[in-house]
Amino acid sequence: MLRSKILRLLSPAINRRCMSSVPKIPLTLVEVDDKSGIATLSMNRPPVNLLDIDMMNSIIESITEIECNKSHGLILTSSNDRVFCAGLDLNELQKPNPERLKEFWAILQDLWLALHLCSVPTAAAINGQAPAGGCLLATACEYRVMMPELIIGINAVRFSYVVPRWFMLSYMSVLPRLVAERALTQGKLFTTAEALQVGLIDEVASSKEEAISKCSSFIGTFSKVNPIARSLTKKQFRESDVQKLLADRVGDIKESVEYISGPLLQEGLAAYLKELKSKSSSKPRKS
Amino acid sequence: MLRSKILRLLSPAINRRCMSSVPKIPLTLVEVDDKSGIATLSMNRPPVNLLDIDMMNSIIESITEIECNKSHGLILTSSNDRVFCAGLDLNELQKPNPERLKEFWAILQDLWLALHLCSVPTAAAINGQAPAGGCLLATACEYRVMMPELIIGINAVRFSYVVPRWFMLSYMSVLPRLVAERALTQGKLFTTAEALQVGLIDEVASSKEEAISKCSSFIGTFSKVNPIARSLTKKQFRESDVQKLLADRVGDIKESVEYISGPLLQEGLAAYLKELKSKSSSKPRKS
Amino acid sequence: MLRSKILRLLSPAINRRCMSSVPKIPLTLVEVDDKSGIATLSMNRPPVNLLDIDMMNSIIESITEIECNKSHGLILTSSNDRVFCAGLDLNELQKPNPERLKEFWAILQDLWLALHLCSVPTAAAINGQAPAGGCLLATACEYRVMMPELIIGINAVRFSYVVPRWFMLSYMSVLPRLVAERALTQGKLFTTAEALQVGLIDEVASSKEEAISKCSSFIGTFSKVNPIARSLTKKQFRESDVQKLLADRVGDIKESVEYISGPLLQEGLAAYLKELKSKSSSKPRKS
Repeated sequence: MLRSKILRLLSPAINRRCMSSVPKIPLTLVEVDDKSGIATLSMNRPPVNLLDIDMMNSIIESITEIECNKSHGLILTSSNDRVFCAGLDLNELQKPNPERLKEFWAILQDLWLALHLCSVPTAAAINGQAPAGGCLLATACEYRVMMPELIIGINAVRFSYVVPRWFMLSYMSVLPRLVAERALTQGKLFTTAEALQVGLIDEVASSKEEAISKCSSFIGTFSKVNPIARSLTKKQFRESDVQKLLADRVGDIKESVEYISGPLLQEGLAAYLKELKSKSSSKPRKS
Repeated sequence: MLRSKILRLLSPAINRRCMSSVPKIPLTLVEVDDKSGIATLSMNRPPVNLLDIDMMNSIIESITEIECNKSHGLILTSSNDRVFCAGLDLNELQKPNPERLKEFWAILQDLWLALHLCSVPTAAAINGQAPAGGCLLATACEYRVMMPELIIGINAVRFSYVVPRWFMLSYMSVLPRLVAERALTQGKLFTTAEALQVGLIDEVASSKEEAISKCSSFIGTFSKVNPIARSLTKKQFRESDVQKLLADRVGDIKESVEYISGPLLQEGLAAYLKELKSKSSSKPRKS
Repeated sequence: MLRSKILRLLSPAINRRCMSSVPKIPLTLVEVDDKSGIATLSMNRPPVNLLDIDMMNSIIESITEIECNKSHGLILTSSNDRVFCAGLDLNELQKPNPERLKEFWAILQDLWLALHLCSVPTAAAINGQAPAGGCLLATACEYRVMMPELIIGINAVRFSYVVPRWFMLSYMSVLPRLVAERALTQGKLFTTAEALQVGLIDEVASSKEEAISKCSSFIGTFSKVNPIARSLTKKQFRESDVQKLLADRVGDIKESVEYISGPLLQEGLAAYLKELKSKSSSKPRKS
């Protein structure tokens, strides 16, 4: 039913911020549906869409491209039906080089800002697991549709990561305060059914196609609204949260680099990665 | 059942702020119920209680009068059973004179402050349509009862109006954050049933009399509370929202006048008014 | 089933802040369950656990002790099955000595901070009435289990007390904003069933033992989380509320002392205490 053309299959030759090598496969795919004018942004970094510097840059560029190409909306999804996005690339956090970590963190801030303030309507078609940073991306969107029997949540505390205030604000923009605090301190991963019940997602869909269709319907609710007035209203609404990050980006980077480099996170991370490894070797189908 | 006397049938001869001509009919009516001591403030500007400078001044004066005459509460309603309040008089916004618009906006701020900080318990008996500014007035009250098959909501984005932060705060004081953001960006008008479901209204009543009676019951829940301590508690609770406006009233006026005078709003407004006109000429019964 | 040892049955010989006489009975009891490592902090000031300077100091010291003795969590309860905590000792507020009132208020701030920022998971097993300050203590915890047919709520306005902003923040950290404002201005006391319905409590338990067991289960949900990372996450989440008090503790004390010493509160308090007295003499079983 969707007649779509591939607008952009190659990730940018020149990376905005760093001199990394050009990846062999595109990290993100952008397709615009001819009929609806809605763009689908597929995360496409095997195996689990980990967010490293290149991947985050690619997502930011795709968002910018979609904003510029007069798309009517943005649907964030994964080209991998098992994992939506497994979150930050923890290798970036383990025994980090401080300069690279600063850059990593600045780009994570950029990504958060780009998605939160995206000028077109945004929706997440969550077609795979969405822990940690995967959940963050989803909550930065305006609507969430998820396939059954998956998990979503900011479980950072499980690997001793104390998330910054702006991560918490994303969670609190969707969940009631009490639910957000409890889930953050527990590092809770919600099943699809639980996520629907607390409002972390808006709808359940039985297939990726259905998820995208439901996201398109949501974006369609804005069809009678002037897109510039809509975008300004969204920005006005989100401004007080966004200002909390913008007010001190450098301070946030400094604090984050210090915390990540410290023993609490490094030890927690090592134990967590070890546990993940032993799990994946014993039960290879479960991430 | 209500034995009431008309306290004030004439709008003030001297208007506080402007030299407008004295209207022929009173713009607002205040009646105090002898038994309950509760005042009903009826908006009475035909045909749809549009908020222009005179009307807003009249509402503010009626609020002040009710605060001063030892009433036990204030019920805001309309003397017109079809429309509670159709919102700002869009003629004030169309091709505006900057000086008059500044005055208009300052009085709108005054009205918001007067209703938000009203020292007696406030409730809205929503007996007619309540779009845009009509919804704003209702959400500034402490309780809302609405008649069936009406609409309520801040639909400003539909005519390209980006509401200021303090409009949003009124909405967020009643609705969950996610619902408020979505409704504001969609310009959603909730039906009575939808409004009840999301908590935008508290109760449904089948007649204006029943709506007023339910509002009176709500106001009665404060009967055992010292009215001064109650009023201070309400002000303390609302202070952080109110401060967001008070901190920069002049800046808000400046920003609003600029935005309203700009092409985005002027074009959106012209299209919206044209659409309303064509609707009302084809289906004269539907506002 | 619980094998517990009494860690501390005597209240501290030297009171941190004041030269009050050493009480004959311990004001608080701390027991640590051998198996779970969870500490129970029982308020033990007959007849109704009123919060005076000594009692608040004793609770703060018990919290500190539990934080230091490597307990896995803190369950706040009462050794009296009729009253969890009846709130501030109103004798401290009536015709107050300004210097003593300053000290009283500073310790109340300390108690609020100690409980809000407690480094271990906290839960309240509400085994008796919890009006006013009793409700405040419960809402400062992370979880609440309550026995049936009790009452809980911040009813301060009933004795003309206008609670400071930080009391309101505790309420708003648990209740939706609209519910919190309405309940504060009404001075509403929720029954157990009502409290469950609005989310003021999380669960109902038919006995104190069951309440403590449910609190233990909640605390158990953190068993896989690094306790330091958990504690930092909790503090980060609560920081913006806590800062609102910390930003001007002295100003809050000054304002509170002035308000409490003024005629509005003094008259309201006198009338309230008279009413309580007449109630307790006519119906001795009802508090």
